[in-house]
Amino acid sequence: MIIVLKPDISKKEEKAVLTEIRKLGYKPHIMRGVERTVIGAIGDERKNHTLESLASWSQVEQVMPVQKRYKLVSREAHRSSSTVKVLDQVLGGRKFHVMAGPCSVEGEAQLMKTAEAVKAAGATILRGGAFKPRTSPYEFQGLGEKALKLLAKARKETGLGIITELLSEGHAEMVAEYADILQIGTRNAQNFQLLIAAARTGKPVMLKRGLSMKIEEWLLAGEYILANENPNLLFCERGIRTFETYTRNTLDLSAVPIIKNESHCPVVVDPSQGVGRADLVTAVCKGAVAMGADALLIEVHPNPAEAWSDGAQQLTLDGFSRLMEELKPFVAAAGREF
Amino acid sequence: MIIVLKPDISKKEEKAVLTEIRKLGYKPHIMRGVERTVIGAIGDERKNHTLESLASWSQVEQVMPVQKRYKLVSREAHRSSSTVKVLDQVLGGRKFHVMAGPCSVEGEAQLMKTAEAVKAAGATILRGGAFKPRTSPYEFQGLGEKALKLLAKARKETGLGIITELLSEGHAEMVAEYADILQIGTRNAQNFQLLIAAARTGKPVMLKRGLSMKIEEWLLAGEYILANENPNLLFCERGIRTFETYTRNTLDLSAVPIIKNESHCPVVVDPSQGVGRADLVTAVCKGAVAMGADALLIEVHPNPAEAWSDGAQQLTLDGFSRLMEELKPFVAAAGREF
Amino acid sequence: MIIVLKPDISKKEEKAVLTEIRKLGYKPHIMRGVERTVIGAIGDERKNHTLESLASWSQVEQVMPVQKRYKLVSREAHRSSSTVKVLDQVLGGRKFHVMAGPCSVEGEAQLMKTAEAVKAAGATILRGGAFKPRTSPYEFQGLGEKALKLLAKARKETGLGIITELLSEGHAEMVAEYADILQIGTRNAQNFQLLIAAARTGKPVMLKRGLSMKIEEWLLAGEYILANENPNLLFCERGIRTFETYTRNTLDLSAVPIIKNESHCPVVVDPSQGVGRADLVTAVCKGAVAMGADALLIEVHPNPAEAWSDGAQQLTLDGFSRLMEELKPFVAAAGREF
Amino acid sequence: MIIVLKPDISKKEEKAVLTEIRKLGYKPHIMRGVERTVIGAIGDERKNHTLESLASWSQVEQVMPVQKRYKLVSREAHRSSSTVKVLDQVLGGRKFHVMAGPCSVEGEAQLMKTAEAVKAAGATILRGGAFKPRTSPYEFQGLGEKALKLLAKARKETGLGIITELLSEGHAEMVAEYADILQIGTRNAQNFQLLIAAARTGKPVMLKRGLSMKIEEWLLAGEYILANENPNLLFCERGIRTFETYTRNTLDLSAVPIIKNESHCPVVVDPSQGVGRADLVTAVCKGAVAMGADALLIEVHPNPAEAWSDGAQQLTLDGFSRLMEELKPFVAAAGREF
Repeated sequence: MIIVLKPDISKKEEKAVLTEIRKLGYKPHIMRGVERTVIGAIGDERKNHTLESLASWSQVEQVMPVQKRYKLVSREAHRSSSTVKVLDQVLGGRKFHVMAGPCSVEGEAQLMKTAEAVKAAGATILRGGAFKPRTSPYEFQGLGEKALKLLAKARKETGLGIITELLSEGHAEMVAEYADILQIGTRNAQNFQLLIAAARTGKPVMLKRGLSMKIEEWLLAGEYILANENPNLLFCERGIRTFETYTRNTLDLSAVPIIKNESHCPVVVDPSQGVGRADLVTAVCKGAVAMGADALLIEVHPNPAEAWSDGAQQLTLDGFSRLMEELKPFVAAAGREF
Repeated sequence: MIIVLKPDISKKEEKAVLTEIRKLGYKPHIMRGVERTVIGAIGDERKNHTLESLASWSQVEQVMPVQKRYKLVSREAHRSSSTVKVLDQVLGGRKFHVMAGPCSVEGEAQLMKTAEAVKAAGATILRGGAFKPRTSPYEFQGLGEKALKLLAKARKETGLGIITELLSEGHAEMVAEYADILQIGTRNAQNFQLLIAAARTGKPVMLKRGLSMKIEEWLLAGEYILANENPNLLFCERGIRTFETYTRNTLDLSAVPIIKNESHCPVVVDPSQGVGRADLVTAVCKGAVAMGADALLIEVHPNPAEAWSDGAQQLTLDGFSRLMEELKPFVAAAGREF
Repeated sequence: MIIVLKPDISKKEEKAVLTEIRKLGYKPHIMRGVERTVIGAIGDERKNHTLESLASWSQVEQVMPVQKRYKLVSREAHRSSSTVKVLDQVLGGRKFHVMAGPCSVEGEAQLMKTAEAVKAAGATILRGGAFKPRTSPYEFQGLGEKALKLLAKARKETGLGIITELLSEGHAEMVAEYADILQIGTRNAQNFQLLIAAARTGKPVMLKRGLSMKIEEWLLAGEYILANENPNLLFCERGIRTFETYTRNTLDLSAVPIIKNESHCPVVVDPSQGVGRADLVTAVCKGAVAMGADALLIEVHPNPAEAWSDGAQQLTLDGFSRLMEELKPFVAAAGREF
Repeated sequence: MIIVLKPDISKKEEKAVLTEIRKLGYKPHIMRGVERTVIGAIGDERKNHTLESLASWSQVEQVMPVQKRYKLVSREAHRSSSTVKVLDQVLGGRKFHVMAGPCSVEGEAQLMKTAEAVKAAGATILRGGAFKPRTSPYEFQGLGEKALKLLAKARKETGLGIITELLSEGHAEMVAEYADILQIGTRNAQNFQLLIAAARTGKPVMLKRGLSMKIEEWLLAGEYILANENPNLLFCERGIRTFETYTRNTLDLSAVPIIKNESHCPVVVDPSQGVGRADLVTAVCKGAVAMGADALLIEVHPNPAEAWSDGAQQLTLDGFSRLMEELKPFVAAAGREF
């Protein structure tokens, strides 16, 4: 921690800060600058009492952390890139993956038709919402366990792994029984109890970035997974909330190389939520591939206009198949295999 | 719903939109403008399939909702202002309330000392965190049930009602046993399963605004409480996330008159989280009172520099007592009683 | 400056940083922490080459500034509060001021009627746009010098000082000839050439906060006025851009006490632009008064629905008069005179 | 325009709205929905008085624009993509362009060395700041005309076209005399007087997106160029301001396909300002190419650590040359030539 003192404070006020720093378990180190005195507090911020509270003192101008707060997700701790195994597929390796399927599972015919089509086009994982977090209590909330059973059936018929959202601690066991990857949605990205429950199922967890989550907070939320002894973590960029209203969210593609630099975990991009408009999905997928993503998560529906949720951003089966064709040269340029 | 068609589309493309609108349960109504054709779709958007999916069609430029999506929290549904009863206190009435206490309950001495001091200064509700949602898994996570028991003890000794955060569906029953108001924190503001669990305890619920929640989304999250048959809802503005870094969050005080206009529920302001700096708390409290808030939620600690969480924003006992004095003329100017 | 080195770098890489720091005119001071080495660079950042460029070196993790970058606007430099004299009025003193008038000057009758009404209700300064910055080139751009002449006429008849926006360096002399305060609008808040031109007229300058300006950047933009030898600077908070769409902007009222703490200059609040809705203006004005603003800037129009610009946020003459009545107890509570 | 009325208003209040709509030059068209009455106002919003002012009436809930506000920059007006000619180069065609050079021109040796290196690596345009808009008045403000002369000399020696920023109306003629493209910076993106002055020079104009500019506002700012009879407009995405602090700005790469859809003008991406960190520039450039940008604008300096401005984001000469190599397969995948 770096503590910046206000100018013109008394020796006594300065001494009080030094005493408090020692009391809280750190060794103070004074630097006298041109206008201000700065104190470095030497000690492990993850083990000692935080010094940020010192900001409440009137003689302190600013307290600035130096140490990174995440450890297990950090590339400093784990130099080589991690991979996550899902059935016979390996995410985070040379092969580029596409997870595709409907926003919500609406019924057997809809799901099977989509599953077969996305598999034929090259997807390796099937997505489908069983429990849906909806802004309004009057919107469709998902088919629940019935949807999970349909997903399991689709896996059996197509061989595709299954990813679906977990949104209640109370469902963790049930969802883990059917799914191959548990998705934590943007609204629950700092629902730490849910993160712990997900981690404890032992299944791979894909953690979406919260709507207004800084990179550091996202890494720390991921730290909750690894700290609960589940090493199979995927980060998923899905757009952040900004002032722009043309797109549903602002997809922060810079997060892809950042997470790859800061962490060893694989990175997925969700263009469907990110932009919220089917007409932009193809361009965004190309960008994600080029910038180093390990996988994409794409919403696909046989008839988007009649989808029970988020129709505006779902691709048709044909649209998805065209997209997969168009991605090929970019996957190759990125040195990946499809 | 208003559907704006693109210019230069064919008659056949237009007809397909009209057919789909009818199929989804609405009656279309065409208006031909100077450059664009606009279709009004007549029907209840809360009962029929959403038309937003039509945005995925290439001939559709825009789909704009007209109807408000919330109902039970709305002042249209309930013209007079609601009040929430907590022990012998009534929130949302003429009396202005202050909820105060430490960020986290750290032990009996700390809590009792604070409880007595805030009561003496005029607070009517005691706040104190038992379960703490922390950005990092390595930070203090709260004393849990032990803290709840201390809060109950403080209530017994001071007569103050208790507000504390609920952050796990699994704790709902336990927390409701001790607390008089359940607080839903900013990170869980769209954790709908938790909202439902909180509502079902029957206890009053104070719903903090999510870090990046629009007013409409906040009202809809509140709708989850009322739709689950709990009429005792308080909204709490606590700052939103913006680009500004001088304050921890940007306190959106305009939300106070907005929620008072749109909804019948009482409004609380949390200046401590809102600005994150003790030196700004007094000014912000004055603004909140002047703008029509029904209550304040303020963090107070006997020794902020050694607080186990969020010390930078906690007031000292003396500071709180001075604040209460300074607020008096503003409470009177607002036509409220202290 | 504080330079944080990456862990595990070589002695040679560390030495290169030290050498560069010395070369750029600073004295390095090393602190070895638990995980990282931190270097304090002692020297005046306003006189020497910036060290932020060191962030481009691979062995450097972070460069953190310590020194405040503003000087003349700072309360450190000028402990007592400044006042700005406008005709016979003093802004920033005990008296609370209201600047009011139409968004745009549309003609003599509209302006005179408004000027007389706002004066009668207690306003001390008349606002009115002559040159209007408009998002679209097809919108009304203001009456230009004709409007300035009408403003001068209104001043003559009512005795009210005049504030109007300057939006071109080329107009600085002309606008300064008619106006008593030059307003710099939000879109030009970092148009430094315009700031310099405004400063050089010698007239008081009211600097609106840019749509996405951090407090520090705003203070630094103000520094351009004082550094160009014009001591008569007013800061005006008028809302920042956030994700919220219910209001036109998010009025950051916390900025009022912050600017009062950091700077000696008077602070004005513009609720009309801030919320963009006439129905919220009264509540916001009360908040601004309570939080320590020195003045308000309010849009008033005889017939808002037919205003040539921004009608949605303009008060009627009656509405303004009611507002002034309602503000009285809050002005008194704030220890100010009306 | 669509005007949504509040529920439960009187017939008289409704009639007043209809009368006003007619008075302002529109034909009203009523639609009665389940809960609300909606009025379509038929007429050209660019020619008639805006109806947004109606939002100030208490019986009006909302006013929603239907028509697009931009015309000349729109792809509706100009189906095929525009190109901009700069010396012997064509921007916006099949060839992909890279504009590169130092943030600021610091002297002859620095500029010539950089110009030769970027040309050798494949750049076709030379960038270099002569007039620099700086957040603080104490920072280096550029060498001014001396820098322009050096840029002209570099053009003569390398054949590269020159792009440099225009930041004062007063400099328009002088800068246009030396430069081949005038750059409008992010802080001046809504400095409409400067846009007009730039347009009138007749030189191609590259308009950077403002820090908090919505897509629509950016297109409308571009409209100022075309409406002032200059058809040679380039849009440049350079990052927007959000809550994220890891990067200097949040580069909104989705803006690339959006501008290509909405407008016929070429799109440039500035990764250097966008992320503000040299270590992320390569990944971002790949993304920009993949998503359909027509050109990149990249900061390159012989010795970034000693750059007079923005050193943290400038590439070394070697780094730039490596980047150009790495981009090749992505340029090919995008169907472009280098």
